[in-house]
Amino acid sequence: MSLTLDQSEGIASASGLMRLERPLRLDSGARLDGVEIAFQTYGRLNATRSNAVLVCHALTGDQHVASTHPVTGKPGWWDRVIGPGRPLDPERHFIVCANVLGGCMGSTGPSSINPQTGQPFGLTFPVITIADMVRAQTMLIEALGIESLFCVIGGSMGGMQVLQWAADYPERVFSAVCIAATARHSAQNIAFHEVGRQAIMADPDWRGGDYTRQGARPQKGLAVARMAAHITYLSEAALQRKFGRELQRDGLSWGFDADFQVESYLRHQGSSFVDRFDANSYLYITRAMDYFDLAAPSGGVLAQAFRGLASTPFFVMSFTSDWLYPTSESRIIVRALNAAGAKASFVEIESDKGHDAFMLDEPVMYAALQGFMGATGAARGLP
Amino acid sequence: MSLTLDQSEGIASASGLMRLERPLRLDSGARLDGVEIAFQTYGRLNATRSNAVLVCHALTGDQHVASTHPVTGKPGWWDRVIGPGRPLDPERHFIVCANVLGGCMGSTGPSSINPQTGQPFGLTFPVITIADMVRAQTMLIEALGIESLFCVIGGSMGGMQVLQWAADYPERVFSAVCIAATARHSAQNIAFHEVGRQAIMADPDWRGGDYTRQGARPQKGLAVARMAAHITYLSEAALQRKFGRELQRDGLSWGFDADFQVESYLRHQGSSFVDRFDANSYLYITRAMDYFDLAAPSGGVLAQAFRGLASTPFFVMSFTSDWLYPTSESRIIVRALNAAGAKASFVEIESDKGHDAFMLDEPVMYAALQGFMGATGAARGLP
Repeated sequence: MSLTLDQSEGIASASGLMRLERPLRLDSGARLDGVEIAFQTYGRLNATRSNAVLVCHALTGDQHVASTHPVTGKPGWWDRVIGPGRPLDPERHFIVCANVLGGCMGSTGPSSINPQTGQPFGLTFPVITIADMVRAQTMLIEALGIESLFCVIGGSMGGMQVLQWAADYPERVFSAVCIAATARHSAQNIAFHEVGRQAIMADPDWRGGDYTRQGARPQKGLAVARMAAHITYLSEAALQRKFGRELQRDGLSWGFDADFQVESYLRHQGSSFVDRFDANSYLYITRAMDYFDLAAPSGGVLAQAFRGLASTPFFVMSFTSDWLYPTSESRIIVRALNAAGAKASFVEIESDKGHDAFMLDEPVMYAALQGFMGATGAARGLP
Repeated sequence: MSLTLDQSEGIASASGLMRLERPLRLDSGARLDGVEIAFQTYGRLNATRSNAVLVCHALTGDQHVASTHPVTGKPGWWDRVIGPGRPLDPERHFIVCANVLGGCMGSTGPSSINPQTGQPFGLTFPVITIADMVRAQTMLIEALGIESLFCVIGGSMGGMQVLQWAADYPERVFSAVCIAATARHSAQNIAFHEVGRQAIMADPDWRGGDYTRQGARPQKGLAVARMAAHITYLSEAALQRKFGRELQRDGLSWGFDADFQVESYLRHQGSSFVDRFDANSYLYITRAMDYFDLAAPSGGVLAQAFRGLASTPFFVMSFTSDWLYPTSESRIIVRALNAAGAKASFVEIESDKGHDAFMLDEPVMYAALQGFMGATGAARGLP
């Protein structure tokens, strides 16, 4: 494992790369050799190794959760949550965030070189699951010397990973926070992802997934995929409030340029996304999300999936205007947690910001999170 | 004008093609010469010319409202509404439905030959509006010898045309029915359309809109556009009820084939659509819908747009699960109609079928429509 201290950041942080010594066994039955997991840490592991918090990122997120993104130069995607005096505090917590398996920010994924061929995997990369991502994370956590996580936390696909941790490794989870997530992908969730995948695969520059080797990039297809997905991350009310029918210029163009500000915004979302994301990673990660159905291996009974949890404090949050993973999905999770005997708290936050609210300025969420981290920290014996 | 009787249908119907003798003046300031409008009729105009019903079709609909579609061989898209004993009855009504200006089923559109160049218009076709479509319809109605329509009726974009008729030609509308529509496109509506347009324009076979002349067709892009749009036509509940997480085969494929039935269904929606629709028509008609804001020319006051209506009976319907044009949009229309002094009735129909409910099996809608047509027919002196 390599660890590099980031000197430039205000808080103690490090960039790490871990190479798994054992092959990674996947749900598909395949095995991956030489898997690498790229990660960031903030703060220091305490002497009793009891203050580790694992942050799990969403579909298009990455490990740069609280430090400047190396490609975009933007602040970390959750720097409202992480920092001195914030819910996750590097002065008190050792915060770890790993790029997911299948990702494109340093962890092994379809754009990585297949050691057996010396060429990028492309579509020869095995299809992975949320459980596979979590299995890789357990190896990282072990390598860091952490037996039990003080907290595992995430929103959206990050929340799915939290649920998977709770189901598969309950003894290693002291507390958990699952925000704006679902225990299984709905037909509509799958449908939107399928549109994105078809947009990518329709791009001739995708080259059957072999674009890297052929010196191409399916940028247009990936941009369309991102545009379609981005609409699902915002509420109708938020789009109306932000853009309404406001024009880019005085008057209509009477053509197909971006007349409306919302068109220009969406186009920008698409074109900036392709600068930082890999099209095949998008295919594999959306597939993992579509395959996600936590109750399935337990005969469809979600409470059974959580049977190992005992009295784990579990905080579930949803947002009123999230139509991607609406509150009803969080309620299903809470009911199952309660049935399994976990100590589930649930807050539905009034917000018009839609699904993306978990990464936006939502003071109630931060306050609720602060309270939960404080109470569970006391129970854990943290200062 | 040419009219051909359709012998094969059970009800008296005819296919027509009208060539406008005057140039069509467009909202953009452009003029179109030699515009042709393709239409279907069902039933016969009575001696007093008082029984004409104009049906306005939706974005991807056409004039084959109650007779077999010439391309797909499928029944008319609204044959539940039109027929003996049904709300629109060819024994009592003279029913007219015209392919919209900009369409691809016989009316002049971007795939038509530009008489000045002898080549398909492609992107040289002028951008059109809902009002332009309606203006072309008024010329057809005049040519058919109809001074006043007994009823103008439509769902979705058809409903927008109904509203435009009521605003621009109130003296020619005896009654009106607007189903599952909106008086203006929202930011989210525009956003989804923009995704579809970008998908089409990202397809290299689109060739800058010149694909017909170059012997290509942007089928993949158009299919992706249709897939994205189709999700917005169904409710989350309908998708879940129809498909849930049901698989195509036993077990997962661990690849990118259609694993889930909802994926296969969506792919089919995309691929069958490209057989019957023109990509440039999709661009132009979605643009017309995005430009639609009926109140804008009246200083943003919708009631002002309806000021000519007097006591016109107006029936507005919405569906509880329609998230494309939700009930709140219909309520805005009803409030404005009432403020303008029209006799507005409003029904919100409990349905989980989403936006497409207006074309599906919704007995309450048919019963309500039957009642409205009967009452207004009596007021009109129809038998």
